[in-house]
Amino acid sequence: MNKKPAIFTILSPALLHLYDFNDAVVVIIDVFRATSTIATALYNGALRVIPVAAVDECKRIGSELTGAVTAGERDGKVIEGLQYGNSPAEYYRSFIEGKTLVLTTTNGTKLLHMALAKGAAEVVTGSFVNLSSVCQYLIEQNKNVILGCSGWKDRFNLEDTLFAGAVINNIKQHFTVHCDSSLMAETMYRLHKNDLHTFIQQTTHYHRLAAYGLHKDLAYCVTPDAANVLPVYFNESLIVK
Amino acid sequence: MNKKPAIFTILSPALLHLYDFNDAVVVIIDVFRATSTIATALYNGALRVIPVAAVDECKRIGSELTGAVTAGERDGKVIEGLQYGNSPAEYYRSFIEGKTLVLTTTNGTKLLHMALAKGAAEVVTGSFVNLSSVCQYLIEQNKNVILGCSGWKDRFNLEDTLFAGAVINNIKQHFTVHCDSSLMAETMYRLHKNDLHTFIQQTTHYHRLAAYGLHKDLAYCVTPDAANVLPVYFNESLIVK
Repeated sequence: MNKKPAIFTILSPALLHLYDFNDAVVVIIDVFRATSTIATALYNGALRVIPVAAVDECKRIGSELTGAVTAGERDGKVIEGLQYGNSPAEYYRSFIEGKTLVLTTTNGTKLLHMALAKGAAEVVTGSFVNLSSVCQYLIEQNKNVILGCSGWKDRFNLEDTLFAGAVINNIKQHFTVHCDSSLMAETMYRLHKNDLHTFIQQTTHYHRLAAYGLHKDLAYCVTPDAANVLPVYFNESLIVK
Repeated sequence: MNKKPAIFTILSPALLHLYDFNDAVVVIIDVFRATSTIATALYNGALRVIPVAAVDECKRIGSELTGAVTAGERDGKVIEGLQYGNSPAEYYRSFIEGKTLVLTTTNGTKLLHMALAKGAAEVVTGSFVNLSSVCQYLIEQNKNVILGCSGWKDRFNLEDTLFAGAVINNIKQHFTVHCDSSLMAETMYRLHKNDLHTFIQQTTHYHRLAAYGLHKDLAYCVTPDAANVLPVYFNESLIVK
């Protein structure tokens, strides 16, 4: 019998150093809202999304590329000097189709670059809006999986944990699951999978973003398979697999 | 109306830097087994427990004090050169009464020193065996509370989280609870409070320690109020409040 690959859940970027990324597939999770926005832009026909860590780099790349849209958010708000924000609703088809989105966000793009620096074999991004694509891909790869929760400025958050739990719940028969954070994540997901829209209203991040009038965005971000494509990191961009 | 103090739950020592310890009461949690052992030794009449970070320091203090017992564990096993281990069962009354226990452990004593270095106003230790004493004390203090989970070598663990959840569940009407880790901890506790002995057998730390034949220890560590005293840090020692 072949040994099953393992799944680990990392609850904060500040815990990344504890895990072995060698030959692992890493799923970057930032449900509110980077990885929901990335899936949505690609689902609606964006050529690619270039995730960048710094605002200056975002501006520079945007000025060098034809047909590029620069976008970014810090603390839930559009950054001065960039054109757009981190709302999936901004990236509807008639706007984003055929364009390159250059995106920088508070938590998600930062974690993505940390995972690359740690030598991850493959990096994909996940949120509820592309849950099925992520799960299908992980089963096919048959490698160890690291579910990386972006959190909020290194703090644990529930929405990313719930998504990790959803993935584990869907694919665990193909994997060895033996870490407490995965067990917790799956338990929390199973408990709330039928009331996600209601439950997320108790989270701190929801309160923070809802204060900016982002209720609709947040409800969209926990809607399974609303933008069901798989963003894969290749050649410094996220493209549809 | 007076503003209620706040409760925060820290899921790993590696996340300590994100929190403000100023004028806060910190509860050090290391259910398997440091904080269960500390409560038990004091409950059974130990004069005091001196928690030390390093093995050499443990030996040095032990040699300088009359009637001191040196004890410690790394990776679940007694350390060479120390007299005793980190099992609460070792510290029965006829052995430990009137003595000083000098203790160093993998996770718990390390976190305690980190909290002191961060300037915590007061440090106490908690486990299921002294749940009621901890809760009563926190209500009386009326200060912000930080529930510090020791984890396992900086990784998240469930048994410490469950204890944090038990505290929150018992005292939340006196506090503001608005962090996702506290919400998660309380949810996990409420879900498993009636089957703690069974549920903890799914945790990674249980498997690690049960492999050393420590089943009885682990069952004891989740028994509410089995050694219901409050260890408070004062003058470099933990003493009964």
